[in-house]
Amino acid sequence: MSLEILDTPALVLDLDAMGRNIAKMAEFARKAGVALRPHAKTHKSPAVARRQIAAGAVGVCCQKVGEAEVMVEGGVADILVTNEIVGATKVARLAGLARLATIRTVVDHPDGLDALAAACVAAGVEIGVLVECDLGMGRCGIADPAAAVALAKRAIATKGVRFDGLQAYHGKIQHIAGWAQRRAGAEACNAKLAEFRAAFAAAGIATPIISGAGTGSYEFQTTAGYTEFQCGTYVFMDKQYRDVGDETGERYGRFEQALFVLATVMSIPSNDRIVLDCGYKTLSVDGGMPEAMDLPGWNFGFGGDEHGILRRADATARLPKIGEKLRIVPAHGDTTINLHDEYQVLSGGKPTMAWPVAARGKIR
Amino acid sequence: MSLEILDTPALVLDLDAMGRNIAKMAEFARKAGVALRPHAKTHKSPAVARRQIAAGAVGVCCQKVGEAEVMVEGGVADILVTNEIVGATKVARLAGLARLATIRTVVDHPDGLDALAAACVAAGVEIGVLVECDLGMGRCGIADPAAAVALAKRAIATKGVRFDGLQAYHGKIQHIAGWAQRRAGAEACNAKLAEFRAAFAAAGIATPIISGAGTGSYEFQTTAGYTEFQCGTYVFMDKQYRDVGDETGERYGRFEQALFVLATVMSIPSNDRIVLDCGYKTLSVDGGMPEAMDLPGWNFGFGGDEHGILRRADATARLPKIGEKLRIVPAHGDTTINLHDEYQVLSGGKPTMAWPVAARGKIR
Repeated sequence: MSLEILDTPALVLDLDAMGRNIAKMAEFARKAGVALRPHAKTHKSPAVARRQIAAGAVGVCCQKVGEAEVMVEGGVADILVTNEIVGATKVARLAGLARLATIRTVVDHPDGLDALAAACVAAGVEIGVLVECDLGMGRCGIADPAAAVALAKRAIATKGVRFDGLQAYHGKIQHIAGWAQRRAGAEACNAKLAEFRAAFAAAGIATPIISGAGTGSYEFQTTAGYTEFQCGTYVFMDKQYRDVGDETGERYGRFEQALFVLATVMSIPSNDRIVLDCGYKTLSVDGGMPEAMDLPGWNFGFGGDEHGILRRADATARLPKIGEKLRIVPAHGDTTINLHDEYQVLSGGKPTMAWPVAARGKIR
Repeated sequence: MSLEILDTPALVLDLDAMGRNIAKMAEFARKAGVALRPHAKTHKSPAVARRQIAAGAVGVCCQKVGEAEVMVEGGVADILVTNEIVGATKVARLAGLARLATIRTVVDHPDGLDALAAACVAAGVEIGVLVECDLGMGRCGIADPAAAVALAKRAIATKGVRFDGLQAYHGKIQHIAGWAQRRAGAEACNAKLAEFRAAFAAAGIATPIISGAGTGSYEFQTTAGYTEFQCGTYVFMDKQYRDVGDETGERYGRFEQALFVLATVMSIPSNDRIVLDCGYKTLSVDGGMPEAMDLPGWNFGFGGDEHGILRRADATARLPKIGEKLRIVPAHGDTTINLHDEYQVLSGGKPTMAWPVAARGKIR
């Protein structure tokens, strides 16, 4: 195959499949009347972000100030940092960045709000803030609508920040297996969001932005009041999101698998065991086990930091040769991408150039 | 504390504790009459490797050609690549590297041996090879002593390579919990190695190097015939290796915890839940859950790629403040280090400078 020229392990991006995924989600959002603000934590690449924006996205989401810096440097003009930013260094960096681009972030505590506002005043900027609502995820955010209203009032009264609405993301519903079960999870999330919206309406506070939803839940959240969707993984897909299932009980196939790791068979100690040159430092394990797409009948397992082990699940499955290159679908794309310095970019199925994973390792 | 000036999350290295660990293992190896060749896959840092060599190590181990390149560039003159190197690009790079340093690697198949030998002939170098024995780990390597002898004979007869002995590493015994159980695992490994040594003796083939052992097993393998130990994690330690236990049933404490991640409390949604700014992209999960060393009575769990969540396990445990910085011990050091660009280096407990994780991401 034409991938033979790539040394391994390599993170490979199929530009054509990615382009179709970008177009498809953009069209869905347009028809639903919801803005699309894809999450750049997935790809960490301004080159990908620019293609999403060219297709209609209003900007991107980031989780870290360092990711936002990379996106602004790469030409992205509108960013929501979907995470509470805490610490003097980081709020100062975020405020400075607001001199170069439209920056919003989220808050869930008066102390965080005040520190951010002070940094913005010092930098001579105003940042839009969304109050983060906890819709049942149990991570950050405010679970009590009255407390969310109170924090919004404080934001409205505070110089340096501008209250722009709510963040309402529920990560745990994204990977619920089964269409009906996932729909039920999303509807519970939507019902909780309705409580927050009612509390804000009763207080007479407008929420011009309500931002949330992900690749596993967006189809169930079009009429819940969201003004923008934060979906990230749709751009590449991964095994976890394929496994959530669609309405027919098949794998979730709205989007194509546009990303894989190319690995080499480095040892075949027996007819039942194949060792690949890709372990925990090449493929993340937080989302479960990757899958060898070129070799059905073999199950992927890890053999440590530098080794993947395929074990025979089907006696008739093909036995590859030492040196053969195989495509592996990551279980979790985001954390796998973050292990790599570069994407090897395919066009027409052929290698073209390398793109940096520009925000890789930007954890601050 | 003096760590307050460090922005988070940060990978922090206590140089004093590391120095004591290096000295202690060097002394153990010297007394045991076994050479020490620490594994650089752990630290990926020539600065650490040079300190190990200054204390008596004969060189380092690497898993990848890219790691070996970084080590040679950083001044390391003697490297064993403890992994089968497969693929035309990589064997050519390895052969080229042998023009600049003493390079050895391992083989477990005639095809791999022949390809490596051809690359060495083309580069005008000779590389020492160790035949990798599978002592029960079930990853790479040859499980049958007669087949190992046959491959050694082929190496002896092949230009470009020099048969130097055996690699005999058993990764699965490293983390067996309980001293007696781990000793039993190591002794089974030693017994299997004895079968290989007997087969080589019977064939009249000398094995000047027998390389293996790790931080969890080295104490049980001093008289098994090893000429060099490959221990890596002892230099920093991690939660996994502390948890294997010593002979008294306590945590394994031969070496000090010299590495941690500094994280910031970014949200406290309730008195039972603390959210930290460190998720899967900051701390690896392949070795289980990290541990908050400054906050007993709280259990660490992940809240996704960018969040760690501490849950109260003890009603009387201290509740920190938003913005407070906490030290987290990684469950698995090697894969956590590989997520970071830099070590923040402490001397006398105080921040001094940053060291690059120079071989981070060198997966080829």
